Amino acid sequence: MDTCKIYLKPTEEIRINQGHPWVFNNEIDRIEGTIKSGELASVFSSKNEFVGKGFLNTSSKIFVRILSRNLDEIIDESFFKNLVETSNNSRKSLGYSNSYRVLFGESDGIPGLIIDKYGDYLSVQILSLGIDQRKDMFIKILVDIFNPKGIYERSDVSVRKKEGLELFKGVIYGDVPSSVIIKENELNMEIDIINGQKTGSFLDQQDNHKALKPYVKNKTVLDCFSHIGGFGLHAAYYGAKLVTCLDISEHAVTQIEKNARLNQLDQVKASKANVFEQLRLYDTNKETFDVVILDPPAFAKKNDDIKKAYKGYKDINLSALKIINPDGYLMTCSCSHYMSPSLFLEMLMDAAYDAKRITQLVEFRIQGKDHPALLGSDESLYLKCVVLRVK
Amino acid sequence: MDTCKIYLKPTEEIRINQGHPWVFNNEIDRIEGTIKSGELASVFSSKNEFVGKGFLNTSSKIFVRILSRNLDEIIDESFFKNLVETSNNSRKSLGYSNSYRVLFGESDGIPGLIIDKYGDYLSVQILSLGIDQRKDMFIKILVDIFNPKGIYERSDVSVRKKEGLELFKGVIYGDVPSSVIIKENELNMEIDIINGQKTGSFLDQQDNHKALKPYVKNKTVLDCFSHIGGFGLHAAYYGAKLVTCLDISEHAVTQIEKNARLNQLDQVKASKANVFEQLRLYDTNKETFDVVILDPPAFAKKNDDIKKAYKGYKDINLSALKIINPDGYLMTCSCSHYMSPSLFLEMLMDAAYDAKRITQLVEFRIQGKDHPALLGSDESLYLKCVVLRVK
Repeated sequence: MDTCKIYLKPTEEIRINQGHPWVFNNEIDRIEGTIKSGELASVFSSKNEFVGKGFLNTSSKIFVRILSRNLDEIIDESFFKNLVETSNNSRKSLGYSNSYRVLFGESDGIPGLIIDKYGDYLSVQILSLGIDQRKDMFIKILVDIFNPKGIYERSDVSVRKKEGLELFKGVIYGDVPSSVIIKENELNMEIDIINGQKTGSFLDQQDNHKALKPYVKNKTVLDCFSHIGGFGLHAAYYGAKLVTCLDISEHAVTQIEKNARLNQLDQVKASKANVFEQLRLYDTNKETFDVVILDPPAFAKKNDDIKKAYKGYKDINLSALKIINPDGYLMTCSCSHYMSPSLFLEMLMDAAYDAKRITQLVEFRIQGKDHPALLGSDESLYLKCVVLRVK
Repeated sequence: MDTCKIYLKPTEEIRINQGHPWVFNNEIDRIEGTIKSGELASVFSSKNEFVGKGFLNTSSKIFVRILSRNLDEIIDESFFKNLVETSNNSRKSLGYSNSYRVLFGESDGIPGLIIDKYGDYLSVQILSLGIDQRKDMFIKILVDIFNPKGIYERSDVSVRKKEGLELFKGVIYGDVPSSVIIKENELNMEIDIINGQKTGSFLDQQDNHKALKPYVKNKTVLDCFSHIGGFGLHAAYYGAKLVTCLDISEHAVTQIEKNARLNQLDQVKASKANVFEQLRLYDTNKETFDVVILDPPAFAKKNDDIKKAYKGYKDINLSALKIINPDGYLMTCSCSHYMSPSLFLEMLMDAAYDAKRITQLVEFRIQGKDHPALLGSDESLYLKCVVLRVK
């Protein structure tokens, strides 16, 4: 099939050649041939060099999402199946088995598609028109590769509107119960694929949960913004003496308690609390901990939010640093890509200064290895997880 | 004993209050009392607020190195013994046992002193006058805490001249043989405390050696700038099919071969080679590897070197990226603090672009947890270790 040809303005191909798969509509000089949203377009530089081809969407600012940089590549079911298999095999070879991100959209070569494996179930998120139009094909591919008990679609994110797509969530194959018990590292975790965060849970923190191991043995641990208890339960599993989990949601608290029972981790206590207020209260009451974990939701969801977000991150980190015992640890995360690694470290230095604590940078971690960032795409490097020793 | 009083120029206390322990001579407004190199000085802000106290050295640009931020602290043997013990206990609680950095100078509160443990032996480096003058006290402290078979001093670094100190190396307690077998993670490594790199070996890469584990099973691995074989031998231990180690030094090659025999890792081959040239030769000969490791010496030893260093790093990373099989991995390091984390990533993107390889950022690691960087001191965050998946 002949595809339409899109010619970029001068030098606009550079970022794309560096690995970023998005062609924005304002980068386009002219179009040759008939364009139809959801169909393939071939992209050329202003010097008529082939850059790549991918599905186009006239309704989106992201006009084309590159699928291949090879002119002769045939974009068909076996092309996509091969990408899903390659990506899945890379995860398996890294040691992931029960639950992990199988495919991370742009980074793994299929822009707009996220595939997460939760035990025998899959949860997918579709964020581009080209993929959305081929949903049945992807279901077939996933059934072929994984033979899952069920596939759930969690396309209930507002960013779909920018693609001209409606929000959607529902079972798209087999049966999916609302409660599924997965294996996260050595722990059993009950998660909710249908109503949980993101595609059901925060798989991106799985490696960081495990990284708690050297810091928590026989320690008192405070886990803030606990969600279903990922960090807190791992801390307990790795030998923490007492773990306090805080979350603003009553539902989360119930979930943490359930998961604590599931793993027979009696030393985990969960409370409904506003973390900002509770940290200050601990300081007032002179309650301290050996290890504090901060895993807040993204405070910055767009670039304009950065200043406000910086304040928010500084607020909780400052409060946390004040209530950590000498020679204790702070494990602190940010999942907003707008908060760059260097800005995050600057904020921590700022917070430590105000808290009058001298701190050491012990680890600088990012999202799990099954959520690889695409080098050349700032958006995909979003999670920072820093460990500070607090003197 | 009354100490002399040093008053800073306005705002010069900020960086110091943020945790950086150096007071530069050009930051000083005036001095009250008698100053004597090697003795304590108390440092005050321009507003007469106490900032900290530490040993001064009139011969050094670093006029004072802060030891305590507590006005009433008594700086004596028990003060230092407590700091060494606290630091050592923090390492032990993180799981280090045989060989590790016990104390990392500025970061662990004793500026100018490095203490490394190699099995039953200690290797120390002294980089400031105040510590040098109290060498006997530190030997006593170390014997009390560790009861080592021997302590070697590796103060053979030119930076000592900036403190007005002569270079020195030699046994300062007990006996120290030239060859010592240490345990690095699960491996036995013969190291040379007397003539090896730094204080005998690169302990700062111990954690990163271990991090190779998920990437190498049944893979072909190329380890460049191998030194005594740390990365290469770990790769073999974690199941690599074939490991090729390259180092420019004949002595290093012999050492790698010895260490391979010591651990019965027959799949490790070592060659004397200029890595820059050898990588290009592999490319010419179309020899490829599943995993390439780059752990070069610091290409930038001062700020002026950055441009040249960038080129050097780009050269080897570009060459390495060209000879990595699809779905392979590059583990690439830089131990120069002048090469900031963001500049290092930029260089990698640049190299990947020129190599025409799409890459994923899988891990961003720093120096080992026993070499904690001081937040607020750029110098102490020096080692970057990035894992890229190469598509």
